[in-house]
Amino acid sequence: MIRISLDVMGGDFGPEVVIPGAAKALERHPDVTFLLFGQQERCMPILEKFSKLKEKSTFHHCEVAVGMDEKPSQALRRGRYISSMWRSIEAVKTGQADVVVSAGNTGALMAMSKFCLRTMATIERPAIAAIWPTLSGESIVLDVGATIGADAQQLLDFALMGGAMARALFEVERPLVGLLNVGVEEIKGQEEVKEAGRLIREAGLDTIDYYGFVEGDDLGKGTVDVVVTEGFTGNIALKTAEGTARQIAEYLKAAMSRTLLAKLGYILAKGAFDRLREKMDPRKVNGGVFLGLNGIVIKSHGGTDAEGFAAAIDVGYDMARNGLTQKIENDLKKYHARRPSSAGPEAA
Amino acid sequence: MIRISLDVMGGDFGPEVVIPGAAKALERHPDVTFLLFGQQERCMPILEKFSKLKEKSTFHHCEVAVGMDEKPSQALRRGRYISSMWRSIEAVKTGQADVVVSAGNTGALMAMSKFCLRTMATIERPAIAAIWPTLSGESIVLDVGATIGADAQQLLDFALMGGAMARALFEVERPLVGLLNVGVEEIKGQEEVKEAGRLIREAGLDTIDYYGFVEGDDLGKGTVDVVVTEGFTGNIALKTAEGTARQIAEYLKAAMSRTLLAKLGYILAKGAFDRLREKMDPRKVNGGVFLGLNGIVIKSHGGTDAEGFAAAIDVGYDMARNGLTQKIENDLKKYHARRPSSAGPEAA
Repeated sequence: MIRISLDVMGGDFGPEVVIPGAAKALERHPDVTFLLFGQQERCMPILEKFSKLKEKSTFHHCEVAVGMDEKPSQALRRGRYISSMWRSIEAVKTGQADVVVSAGNTGALMAMSKFCLRTMATIERPAIAAIWPTLSGESIVLDVGATIGADAQQLLDFALMGGAMARALFEVERPLVGLLNVGVEEIKGQEEVKEAGRLIREAGLDTIDYYGFVEGDDLGKGTVDVVVTEGFTGNIALKTAEGTARQIAEYLKAAMSRTLLAKLGYILAKGAFDRLREKMDPRKVNGGVFLGLNGIVIKSHGGTDAEGFAAAIDVGYDMARNGLTQKIENDLKKYHARRPSSAGPEAA
Repeated sequence: MIRISLDVMGGDFGPEVVIPGAAKALERHPDVTFLLFGQQERCMPILEKFSKLKEKSTFHHCEVAVGMDEKPSQALRRGRYISSMWRSIEAVKTGQADVVVSAGNTGALMAMSKFCLRTMATIERPAIAAIWPTLSGESIVLDVGATIGADAQQLLDFALMGGAMARALFEVERPLVGLLNVGVEEIKGQEEVKEAGRLIREAGLDTIDYYGFVEGDDLGKGTVDVVVTEGFTGNIALKTAEGTARQIAEYLKAAMSRTLLAKLGYILAKGAFDRLREKMDPRKVNGGVFLGLNGIVIKSHGGTDAEGFAAAIDVGYDMARNGLTQKIENDLKKYHARRPSSAGPEAA
């Protein structure tokens, strides 16, 4: 049984999307139970419509909902201990839930998650990992925006954590990990990226397979299982790819409706177009995973619909079922045990 | 008359692509004359096949050709003064040509261009500007890889130079300029980007219109005419977009050949697909522009074909005809004249 905690008030639409999304996810994963946190008067009328979900859920009333444009500091001040966001995260901390899913605002969710769950002992900064659709399947890309900038050691931590997530998600034994850079030659790139490459090679990690540098176009190709970068570049790469996909979808739509023949062709090829749309559907890969905390937090897009929110729950389900937090902890322990100069808690 | 200098040996295919490309460009711009630099024995047999081009060209034999994987320092050592790359750039310096186009390796081309043409008086670092296809037309994005990292003043310089290029290319009076960032709120982002935003606002420039921050997905939308970022992020955004476009083209191809109905639909809609392919054709937007040097240098993709190389010549033609270098110089002068603390050469 997997116990999933939901911030029902999070996202642009709150319970209108979160509750139907949970109902969809429940159909796919009958072994799930939910802990729902939200404003009773807004949530209950909707929950009443989904009797199966209601049966598998416990509802917890929270007066305060964090706003989508509240600053992290403001959200913490106003919503700590009492908001639906905080309490849904707290359920993971107390062990009542295996994972929490929220479509609430990223900054506030990260701030509350850090405050409530704390980062793992040897991790300085958590990261947000995205699941990236590629020509050969899916890759993990991190950090896509938890923090700006990262030094070599932090990039190595990202490589370890992304590797653990790849093992949980793709069931590969030693995921192939690459560092995002502007050239494949050793001489190019940012100092921190070059230094991270050296660190990873020298660490001789046996939980991942280090590929070397990858470039922007390797993301779509799926050259590696895990692409590591700092949050500024990762966020811009992610949004650039989303924007390009939308742009091409617009071109396609315009091209297919311009002439009668094109329209007829479109009708005949509709099955193919539907499959294509599904491949390009950003809802299918919804769900950023916060890595490096003592617990699993999944961030859904704020503007998603029920299908998209269900996809974020799917990601949380997979992560919890495959013991993501434990995997990361084990990998970090292994790495620090091999490292003579380690300042890990065991060495203190 | 526009005089274009060509590094005929540059690129993966050298004269096999450069000469037919020049012939194509000449058809579109009959007022062009060419200065061709390359190895006589490789170039002449090809040039013989294009009599119109031969008539409008002067050929200059150069024994040395810069290799596609030579390091900049090595290329400078081996090819300064004598290579086809150097001499084609030198023709701009001596005033024999208005612009140079090369498909040679980026690092060597930038190093030689800096060494030969020198950067403009008040510019610390040149930038590479890309022309980015958008839903509303085209935008200019810089820097896409000349240097890694940029401080606030350098980002302001990029904004000025990109603005001048937009005026040369799009014929808008005050191009809209945005800074690439990870969020639209003023509180987010890299320190240098925030500082650059302040600098640009305070400078009260009348040659550009400052929009504020843009995000990765604004690139494809065409939210602004000019997107400013440092070279690491810009290069990764560019390659991520190229990779995503290729990825979707692959999906489309696979979808359209899967069933008989889809194939039939494809045949009927072929005209529409051809237009779509043209829109997505990376050759159509080939040609990075080096900004900030005393002369115009256009970098073509190394692996492009004749059509792509002709597109790079088109860009060079437009830049030269619209007096890009002069426009940038004027804009920089205006900016530094308004700036009391300016350390420009006039102030010395």
